[in-house]
Amino acid sequence: MIDIDEAYRRVFANIEPIDTVEVVLDDSLHRTLARSIQCDLDHPPFDRSVMDGYAVRAADVAGAPVTLRVTGQIAAETWVDDPAGGHAWAPGEAMQINTGAPIPRGADAVVRVELTEPVGGGELPEQVLIRNPVEPGTFITRRATYGSAGQTVLQAGTLMTPAAIGAAAAAGASRVTVYRKPTVALLSTGGELVEIDCVPRGAQIRNSNQHQLHALVLSAHAEPAPMGIVPDDRQELRESIKAALRHDVLCITGGVSMGAFDFVPEVLEQCGARFHIQKMAIKPGRPIQFATTDDGTLIFALPGNPVSAFVGFELLVRPALAALQGRTGRIPKPIQAQLRGTLSATRDRRAYVPARVEISDDGLCVVEPLSWRGSGDAFGLAGANAMIVRPPNVANAENGQTVSILLLDRV
Amino acid sequence: MIDIDEAYRRVFANIEPIDTVEVVLDDSLHRTLARSIQCDLDHPPFDRSVMDGYAVRAADVAGAPVTLRVTGQIAAETWVDDPAGGHAWAPGEAMQINTGAPIPRGADAVVRVELTEPVGGGELPEQVLIRNPVEPGTFITRRATYGSAGQTVLQAGTLMTPAAIGAAAAAGASRVTVYRKPTVALLSTGGELVEIDCVPRGAQIRNSNQHQLHALVLSAHAEPAPMGIVPDDRQELRESIKAALRHDVLCITGGVSMGAFDFVPEVLEQCGARFHIQKMAIKPGRPIQFATTDDGTLIFALPGNPVSAFVGFELLVRPALAALQGRTGRIPKPIQAQLRGTLSATRDRRAYVPARVEISDDGLCVVEPLSWRGSGDAFGLAGANAMIVRPPNVANAENGQTVSILLLDRV
Repeated sequence: MIDIDEAYRRVFANIEPIDTVEVVLDDSLHRTLARSIQCDLDHPPFDRSVMDGYAVRAADVAGAPVTLRVTGQIAAETWVDDPAGGHAWAPGEAMQINTGAPIPRGADAVVRVELTEPVGGGELPEQVLIRNPVEPGTFITRRATYGSAGQTVLQAGTLMTPAAIGAAAAAGASRVTVYRKPTVALLSTGGELVEIDCVPRGAQIRNSNQHQLHALVLSAHAEPAPMGIVPDDRQELRESIKAALRHDVLCITGGVSMGAFDFVPEVLEQCGARFHIQKMAIKPGRPIQFATTDDGTLIFALPGNPVSAFVGFELLVRPALAALQGRTGRIPKPIQAQLRGTLSATRDRRAYVPARVEISDDGLCVVEPLSWRGSGDAFGLAGANAMIVRPPNVANAENGQTVSILLLDRV
Repeated sequence: MIDIDEAYRRVFANIEPIDTVEVVLDDSLHRTLARSIQCDLDHPPFDRSVMDGYAVRAADVAGAPVTLRVTGQIAAETWVDDPAGGHAWAPGEAMQINTGAPIPRGADAVVRVELTEPVGGGELPEQVLIRNPVEPGTFITRRATYGSAGQTVLQAGTLMTPAAIGAAAAAGASRVTVYRKPTVALLSTGGELVEIDCVPRGAQIRNSNQHQLHALVLSAHAEPAPMGIVPDDRQELRESIKAALRHDVLCITGGVSMGAFDFVPEVLEQCGARFHIQKMAIKPGRPIQFATTDDGTLIFALPGNPVSAFVGFELLVRPALAALQGRTGRIPKPIQAQLRGTLSATRDRRAYVPARVEISDDGLCVVEPLSWRGSGDAFGLAGANAMIVRPPNVANAENGQTVSILLLDRV
């Protein structure tokens, strides 16, 4: 049995990032940047106003209150070289200016409109009363404050969040190079399985794993490839596995325990799998296996019960999918939370307990173990938005105690 | 100026959940359930084995170690009424059983294979040595342990996470009723704006907001409808707004400040908008406005600078999209984090500071304000995965101090 840190070492040691693809920026959400993005221009490309108000010379308003002549309005959109349109700035002048508009040559500060008073009517007053003096540079964003031409804005390996996409857009990156989405074959083994729209008879159970894993793969921003159910038959299993190995990743569920029909590992080996993990010191999930083929396909053999499959995906498959896409920071890190309820002692394995975290009014994460009744309890798992992580060989955890949790969703 | 709590009251008071649609279960990820889901059967529908091993009678192994006759193997997939296939259990017998298989009539406990030893060869041994006694019921999951037929498994209003989809699958819900995805028109105002694949000249700037908002809408699991750029012209603005109001939501950026060209509110009113929020006590984002039409379209007028637009979306538009989809628990709640760096005092507005949160080795959220240089700094915002929330009228925050943060991503 190997622990989770050693498992990560073995998984990442056997992953090479996959190929890259160019996409339009709007299609890059939650994908991983494969080529860094630079500013093509200074940003902003000119000195610009932070506020709506009046562009002035600080020297002219040093003795404020003072009234200035309004010589014009900065028409941002028509300007190319000189926002003042060639007007030579004379003492005692001001120009009306909008947030984001370029500072006209001659002005060196902006006065907020709230601290001014128009004198004379019309949309553009003849004069403006400036109530207070300002320092030179007030409410001006200097050219290249945010970035200089050529500067890297987003590094390769960055997850394209909405904020990152906004930055790429500002840098003019209308197309970006990202990693291809890995495809993940989903294969469920077991003669007792039936499709979910069937009513199970006798010992049959629904193949809920296929759908849970489909959603998990989508939530990891990869492409699920459902391959259905394969019965406990070596020949059929071999055919199905061979077909599945055309994908970047295979998640196969069931048939990995110690039962008489559990020949998944044996057949995987016949199909060229080399095993790197054969038993993990985690609960649930001991029988989880990780293997690779010479072609670089990653194989995760997960237990057939839904809670173990879920834990195995979150712990190993999700980080592996991030690594396949060249992502940095892919190992989930636990945060502290306050336990509501109790937990029993652990033995020789690290325990992952599906749980529900809520945020208290004073900003604490308060976590409650779900009332699941064993690793087959798909219903108990339904409300999970976190997993409590418990080290091996620790005593009972009491109500109110601090525990470690992994967040599964935005809270 | 209204505060954020009053803003939520006004937003939610003006939202009715939109219509619903039936989708196949695999398409329901991150959508909101509109009709609750019940178990159609007891789950599990029979007493089943938790382990690979041997089904026994506890009374037969009370004097263990003891050797039992192996009378068969539970062939889970073929069983309908009696997993023992009509075999009448006699004292001193055992049957090989797999995890998940039904308990044969007559047996009342399962012994794990690791605590047994086969006697006699073949895949199925003739006899098995049972090393220790077991209590009746050991390693048996009783019928209906996880849920009884008719019991509600998922309530309407639930966000369909992968775990929820797994539960729905187990309950046989191959199709589910969810709320329709709201469509969100994105309209950018300003004569200075150009498409992002243009090289800006003079005072032009790229319409990065459109792409940032496109990604934000997708990340909120709604449908963006990009409507492009509209110049600062009342007539053109009116036409564009009318077209945009066919959608469930309109996010319009720019033209909401106090500048001479800022006639978005005036034109919105002409188009039938009734305003509920006209100024917010937040920084950035004071000019954010919220209005509705008689048709129920929600209108969010956001400032044109990317950081304010981002904050406005996260604070108001994302929760509104959740409410439109009937979601419970939609107001983001801040959690505590340790500040790395310092923050200046606040005045009369609540401050939202884009920040990067990392988890320390001891499980603390450590948050660092991004080195953004004003609300126009799309590049500084790029790494944001959190926002620090600071109440109005508080002093400087020092390094190491506890602050409140909103998480923007899974950390």
